[in-house]
Amino acid sequence: MAKTYRVTFEPEGRSVFALEGTTVIEAAGRAEIILNLPCGGKGTCGKCRVEVPVGSPPHSEKELEHLNEDEVRRNVHLACQTHIHADMTINIPSETRFFEQKILVEGAGREVALEPGVKKVFVKVKEPCLEDQTADVDRVLESVKDMASDARVDLDTIRTVPDRLREGKFKITVVLNGNELLSIEGGDTTEHTYGVAFDIGTTTIVGMLLDLRSGKLVATASRTNPQVVYGDDVISRISYAMENKNGLAELQERVVAAINEIIAEICRQAGVNRRHVYEVFAVGNTTMHHLLLGVHPKNIAQAPYVAAVRKSIETRAADLGIHINEYGRFHAMPNIAGFVGGDTVGVILAAGMMHSDDLKLAIDIGTNGELAMGTKDRMICCSTAAGPAFEGARIKFGMRAADGAIEKVVIRDDVEVNVIGRARARGLCGTALIDAVAELLRVGVIDSTGKILAPEEANGDVPDAVRKRIVPGDMGYDFVLVPGSDTPSGQPVLLIQKDVREVQLAKGAIFAGIQILKHELGVKDEDITEVLLAGAFGNFIRRSMAKRIGLLPDIPTDRIKFIGNAAGAGSRMALVAKGCRREAERISAETEYIELGGRPDFQNEFMMAMMYPERLNHE
Amino acid sequence: MAKTYRVTFEPEGRSVFALEGTTVIEAAGRAEIILNLPCGGKGTCGKCRVEVPVGSPPHSEKELEHLNEDEVRRNVHLACQTHIHADMTINIPSETRFFEQKILVEGAGREVALEPGVKKVFVKVKEPCLEDQTADVDRVLESVKDMASDARVDLDTIRTVPDRLREGKFKITVVLNGNELLSIEGGDTTEHTYGVAFDIGTTTIVGMLLDLRSGKLVATASRTNPQVVYGDDVISRISYAMENKNGLAELQERVVAAINEIIAEICRQAGVNRRHVYEVFAVGNTTMHHLLLGVHPKNIAQAPYVAAVRKSIETRAADLGIHINEYGRFHAMPNIAGFVGGDTVGVILAAGMMHSDDLKLAIDIGTNGELAMGTKDRMICCSTAAGPAFEGARIKFGMRAADGAIEKVVIRDDVEVNVIGRARARGLCGTALIDAVAELLRVGVIDSTGKILAPEEANGDVPDAVRKRIVPGDMGYDFVLVPGSDTPSGQPVLLIQKDVREVQLAKGAIFAGIQILKHELGVKDEDITEVLLAGAFGNFIRRSMAKRIGLLPDIPTDRIKFIGNAAGAGSRMALVAKGCRREAERISAETEYIELGGRPDFQNEFMMAMMYPERLNHE
Repeated sequence: MAKTYRVTFEPEGRSVFALEGTTVIEAAGRAEIILNLPCGGKGTCGKCRVEVPVGSPPHSEKELEHLNEDEVRRNVHLACQTHIHADMTINIPSETRFFEQKILVEGAGREVALEPGVKKVFVKVKEPCLEDQTADVDRVLESVKDMASDARVDLDTIRTVPDRLREGKFKITVVLNGNELLSIEGGDTTEHTYGVAFDIGTTTIVGMLLDLRSGKLVATASRTNPQVVYGDDVISRISYAMENKNGLAELQERVVAAINEIIAEICRQAGVNRRHVYEVFAVGNTTMHHLLLGVHPKNIAQAPYVAAVRKSIETRAADLGIHINEYGRFHAMPNIAGFVGGDTVGVILAAGMMHSDDLKLAIDIGTNGELAMGTKDRMICCSTAAGPAFEGARIKFGMRAADGAIEKVVIRDDVEVNVIGRARARGLCGTALIDAVAELLRVGVIDSTGKILAPEEANGDVPDAVRKRIVPGDMGYDFVLVPGSDTPSGQPVLLIQKDVREVQLAKGAIFAGIQILKHELGVKDEDITEVLLAGAFGNFIRRSMAKRIGLLPDIPTDRIKFIGNAAGAGSRMALVAKGCRREAERISAETEYIELGGRPDFQNEFMMAMMYPERLNHE
Repeated sequence: MAKTYRVTFEPEGRSVFALEGTTVIEAAGRAEIILNLPCGGKGTCGKCRVEVPVGSPPHSEKELEHLNEDEVRRNVHLACQTHIHADMTINIPSETRFFEQKILVEGAGREVALEPGVKKVFVKVKEPCLEDQTADVDRVLESVKDMASDARVDLDTIRTVPDRLREGKFKITVVLNGNELLSIEGGDTTEHTYGVAFDIGTTTIVGMLLDLRSGKLVATASRTNPQVVYGDDVISRISYAMENKNGLAELQERVVAAINEIIAEICRQAGVNRRHVYEVFAVGNTTMHHLLLGVHPKNIAQAPYVAAVRKSIETRAADLGIHINEYGRFHAMPNIAGFVGGDTVGVILAAGMMHSDDLKLAIDIGTNGELAMGTKDRMICCSTAAGPAFEGARIKFGMRAADGAIEKVVIRDDVEVNVIGRARARGLCGTALIDAVAELLRVGVIDSTGKILAPEEANGDVPDAVRKRIVPGDMGYDFVLVPGSDTPSGQPVLLIQKDVREVQLAKGAIFAGIQILKHELGVKDEDITEVLLAGAFGNFIRRSMAKRIGLLPDIPTDRIKFIGNAAGAGSRMALVAKGCRREAERISAETEYIELGGRPDFQNEFMMAMMYPERLNHE
């Protein structure tokens, strides 16, 4: 059984478990930290420098070509050339990060200019006298007219201007939001200008505090979306909102409470006063978007699945009950359709797909699988009801990727499993589910129709130890992954026949969706230059296993890339770069949504995609 | 004693009392109805047609030149050629009105295009289907994209769109406010689109309901400003707001309550549902403006007299507690300075002064006297602390123009007075105050220093009956206007020496202000082509009397014009014509404010202006 190590990434302080031999890049990806790799991880550019204060391995020759003596002494490594072989602490500087790199430096592909919505400027306002009785608000506007000509000012702000101007002795910081004067603050507060980017997932909410002056990430925190008590998928949330008088308000209060907790936590971590947070940018699927905004999502749940609103929304954060600066703004990423939301817009934005001549396919697998495919000339997308199988739901021993979850399954002479937290196995998470099916397909315990064969039917090459694990079940046969003797409960951890069917349905839906997108664009597998795996689950998949079960197209594995929490990255980009907000609006407006339920060819593709592939061209 | 008749104007149903021989134009002016007079009232253009169903006099020859037989039969008259000789009812059609004329028809001088902020459009929205899952809000915006491209939509409105769209079976009325979608309403409600223009005076609040589709006045109502319980001038209101913890909030609540009462009343009068009122436009002096908006006016009350805000303000009416359509908007006319507010902007706007090559002087006399002078090339203004003398305050027997008030004084062999409401005299209103001082100056009872002479000092030509009315008082001599035998109280109505001094101070301040404006522009009296008298009091002044006491410059009387409640007319114009809002913003920004307190020459002019003129060139 391969060893697992704990890898902690700084400054986030985020830990993940990684198998021996995993590269630092991949481990960082699992911690949702995306590195900038100009050379594609070949070790030739020397850009992916990280510091390893704890558990630093010896330097390889390739690394020594790029590092000076001081760097070697400080345990600086190249992330692409460094493998996990012990518990490690790895400090990833901002210049090595994908996101900050794109913001601050001209990248190879595209440049994103740092341009937050909210800017602060310290000004000395001319004091009034009998010869100059200019009104207070007009006087302040005059002082910033080069930055904002004839700016709008809300009445709430106007009411505060006379006193704040005099309290600050006419030396004030003006807070501008584009061509709007948000507020004035006494003295010079320009150093304190923050924003929070949120990824509002159906299951998990992540908040990231950014310094709007530099675009840098300062702190992050996450919470389980407290709406999960009303059901773990979007349909059950919508049902709750429809069936209960105050359902919508309750759901909104829950998510806003979590948002406020996260803001409080990241501000505490970073020593930032919440009053100095001026903008919140949020991405989420269309249902999460509507629920957070208090917009009823009921029409999403029934044909023709219409969202209330697609275009981007800006409102006062305080109007939603979000506690930042009292004049602070809330932005929601625009949606595409009822089942393809701002999170997918964030993925397309972060991956720069709308700037690429190369055909790319982005896959964000969660409860639903959202797919986007295209180039800068045409982008199409769809949503597949993948079901929550990969998140552990409807799987007999399914569980989330927590301590006690099998996360990897390998079959050699017998079954080898890797369990998170070095604990005894309690169940299996999504990656192990894929591994188990893939390995059993490979050795011949499962046939291409998805049937777990009887011990006597299985391929003659199946090792005896493996064959013995096939046991009778409710629906044909089940497979023992871990015997009861090795589990805390004393019960074996099984992969049952029904689990294999769930995987078939889920992967079939996603694969069929990919087929429809290919048909629509008139392209073949070989035309796809990159398959981008986004989202928490996508970043844990073992690519060859996913291909083995027919979840991903049969293309060379090195074209399949992990892009981390790309939706969250899109949220951060839009928070600090107004150019990205405009691009997001364009993505939202121009990406064509393909309704699979409206296509006669989808059912056919789905039936075919449910079969497991006989063999692969690109193992 | 000249006879007084009641004249009722329709469709307002507003009555005024007018002396025998008054023209219909002048009587209408007193009722704050301004007529359009292309030929200047010479009877040559025949445009000022009115109907006189009650009290119609015989037609003059000049009238018969312009009227056909049918019109003569219907008692149509020309307002400029018709004099009051009986109780009359006069119906003034909209085409004869100054305001509507300017809005609807190309006038001689300038054209104002009807262009309200809020427009409604009835659309049939395409219903969604599986092939077209466009979000509801985007679907609605698509249907009005020719009128408002990529319109903004508030979150509150977004929340209502899905249900209203379906309740209306996708046939809806879209309410647009410029490039903002305010709301949608089921079915076709385009016929019901109203706005209310307010003139928020320190003493009186007037509300006018207008049909935004035609620009026509539908109903009007007024209330005493309930803030008067906190003092009758702006300084006492500001003091109350400063000295009481919730003072500002109390003052705001009072004025908002009156506004809501007026809206309810005019809607009831016109049979209009309050939900079909979408815009409120208000003018007022800077203090009234700030108090209504909940902006503290404290800095206006102390040097250097700075307002909190000058520029125009738009906000949700509901945010101010004003009860119209829940998405309706409130607009405040921009100000010029702490003591020259949106009411003066309204006067300059209504009088078209910013479009004129001719030098004009507008005078709005109330508690303060606001003066504006200039041409389209340069406009300047000032505020004079005229004091409330002309409103009856600080005058021994001063009272408002109500029943029992002397409103006219003429001296021939003896004193003749005219009393409002055919009642016995209880006191005297502003016009009678001016008359009394002017007539006593003329006959030689008051000398040019403002002293009431002793009976033996008075001019030898003074009739005995008049001389006998001079009686000893606290400060020298007083003058008996009405003996105790003719009053309900049995006490005589007197003009006392101190009253004459109050008039001197008030008229001196205004006249000195005019002198400063003339100096500033480098012009003389003869350069002034028109003196425009605005406001409730201005429209009751007898021009020759005002010149006699030195309140107005000594220019030919026919150049002195009454323009009614021009501030209110400006509010109506801005309500229905966005071009006028832009012009108002320009007036506000470009009109130069002259602070009289900051000018060394003002005290000198004021001292000189306190003297009464020895004689006039243009009687």
